[in-house]
Amino acid sequence: DYITKPPIAEFHKDVAKWLNMDAVRTVPGARRGFQAVANTYVNKGDPVLLTALSHYTEFMAVEEAGGVAREIPANDQKLVTPDAAAEKIEAVKKEFGRAPVLAFIDHVDYQYGNMHDVAGIAKVCHQYDVPVLYNGAYTVGVLPVDGKALGVDFVVGSGHKSMASPAPSGILAATAEREGEVFRTTAIEGDVTKRKFGIKEPEMMGCTLMGVTLVGMMASFPHVKERTKHFDKELANHQIVMDALLSIEGTTCLSEYPRKHTMTRVNTIESFDKVAATHKKRGYYLQSALEERGITGVIPGATKVWKFNTYGVTRKQAEHLARSFMEIAQENGLAVKGPASPV
Amino acid sequence: DYITKPPIAEFHKDVAKWLNMDAVRTVPGARRGFQAVANTYVNKGDPVLLTALSHYTEFMAVEEAGGVAREIPANDQKLVTPDAAAEKIEAVKKEFGRAPVLAFIDHVDYQYGNMHDVAGIAKVCHQYDVPVLYNGAYTVGVLPVDGKALGVDFVVGSGHKSMASPAPSGILAATAEREGEVFRTTAIEGDVTKRKFGIKEPEMMGCTLMGVTLVGMMASFPHVKERTKHFDKELANHQIVMDALLSIEGTTCLSEYPRKHTMTRVNTIESFDKVAATHKKRGYYLQSALEERGITGVIPGATKVWKFNTYGVTRKQAEHLARSFMEIAQENGLAVKGPASPV
Repeated sequence: DYITKPPIAEFHKDVAKWLNMDAVRTVPGARRGFQAVANTYVNKGDPVLLTALSHYTEFMAVEEAGGVAREIPANDQKLVTPDAAAEKIEAVKKEFGRAPVLAFIDHVDYQYGNMHDVAGIAKVCHQYDVPVLYNGAYTVGVLPVDGKALGVDFVVGSGHKSMASPAPSGILAATAEREGEVFRTTAIEGDVTKRKFGIKEPEMMGCTLMGVTLVGMMASFPHVKERTKHFDKELANHQIVMDALLSIEGTTCLSEYPRKHTMTRVNTIESFDKVAATHKKRGYYLQSALEERGITGVIPGATKVWKFNTYGVTRKQAEHLARSFMEIAQENGLAVKGPASPV
Repeated sequence: DYITKPPIAEFHKDVAKWLNMDAVRTVPGARRGFQAVANTYVNKGDPVLLTALSHYTEFMAVEEAGGVAREIPANDQKLVTPDAAAEKIEAVKKEFGRAPVLAFIDHVDYQYGNMHDVAGIAKVCHQYDVPVLYNGAYTVGVLPVDGKALGVDFVVGSGHKSMASPAPSGILAATAEREGEVFRTTAIEGDVTKRKFGIKEPEMMGCTLMGVTLVGMMASFPHVKERTKHFDKELANHQIVMDALLSIEGTTCLSEYPRKHTMTRVNTIESFDKVAATHKKRGYYLQSALEERGITGVIPGATKVWKFNTYGVTRKQAEHLARSFMEIAQENGLAVKGPASPV
């Protein structure tokens, strides 16, 4: 954090300001951010709060630190609520005789792309003095994130998932209150040599992100910063595709609706998958028909339940994708409830 | 470890065979290898063996895992011996009521480039059931390393230090006996969702090295493998430079002698530094005079006690460097005991 060429300290400061947090370090991937925080707060046998929609890397961080995972359940709408958080903390207190030592809360989860009430959950957690790690894997670099408004202790972002950066990269931000804990400097000493190691931070293993990946993050930052301001356009484009998909009879949206994020899980068992049963290309006809229209990267062979993300597509591309889904549906005998309005 | 394209599993196997170990993972830097092993064996308050010449990243790994550092002292020749290891383990047993839970032993240390008797130290450690991590930051990729012959439990190598690979990269190798411990697969489970995470390894945070750095390591491997066979030539070239330096009156070698590694610490307080006292360029004349001869990257401003590494220089370059040191010494009025034989 003290290196001035390249201007890493400056970059850390810029990222902190952008996230409205007090201290930032770049890390080799979001998972290393989880690990640093888990190793700071979690000792063997400590209960740690996650959610029923938490990413596996959060579980790995808890396990590596010796913690015990306890999940806040999601409700029928696949949302994690402050009430459910309060109930779970009470259950943990009953089971362990104490509150969880840390909570991992995903703002937008990886399964449904649903947006959870992190501010509300953080408020509940803080009533029990539980520090809250905000997992921004699908938000930091994608949409505006204000750590102070959310009231979280840590913000973790993924460089390669959502910040247009090379893998592995990521950021870990902390409040001024927590900074001294997770970014504490080393206190270890050699008993023979009496060596001390000064400003090195044990959770950073002495260094933040190095080399090409860091420089990649720095180069992308102005673009990433700018693009988060236009998430409304991304959502509008996503809606064009959703309208088309939902106009195809039997298709349902498994994510919360209306959509707040561009990553969505849909169920096409009663639509595209019906075609697959008799189509000579089986489940691959959909992918193949999309490819004929120049659309690649979409769900190889999947016609039942699948996730897609339109982040970064232009309006024209969104319209083309929407039209394509409707055409493919019609060509294969699926009923389409009239063209969705914007197409 | 199960990905076949690129052939990572195959690469892991090749590296294991090359090091005569049973299992290998690529890691984002040697320090992450230290961390994985430390987090596997070290709990809060556990004593961990290091040496008086251990690298700070080993101390960071111990601290991050909650361990207490205990150093094996080096002797007057700056060597860590099996006898000293045995004595220290006994001292730890007295202090903690139990043996250390892990030992970090550097084969070639970063301070003097001295080669320590790892095989002997490992034998002693195993008498007390202490697992031994071999730090090969200056050996793996540089000279032949045979983990089984050394009798160590873990071999850690640095990709960017000694394997001609991009930063951050490294390898962590284990014996069959220890593999199941450090590369254990996850056992954590979601209490609500009952999710399990299959083959993910918590110490690897679910993934080994990713992206460009891994591909860089794989690309370098055949070259690295080949070059370790020719370390004798590297040593011969190093000796040419050492002969020249030691022919300059007042210069002494602070590392063990004869040299077994190409990285050496010399003391020129009574030779080059004497010149600096009156030279108009002060301590920078040496660097400047070397640069005039096309030699760069050498110790900016240092004329007292400094480290240098000739690894990778050709015989011609070694001779040029040797001649240059002698010429600069003579030009500045330092006595030179006749040209060293090979120059």
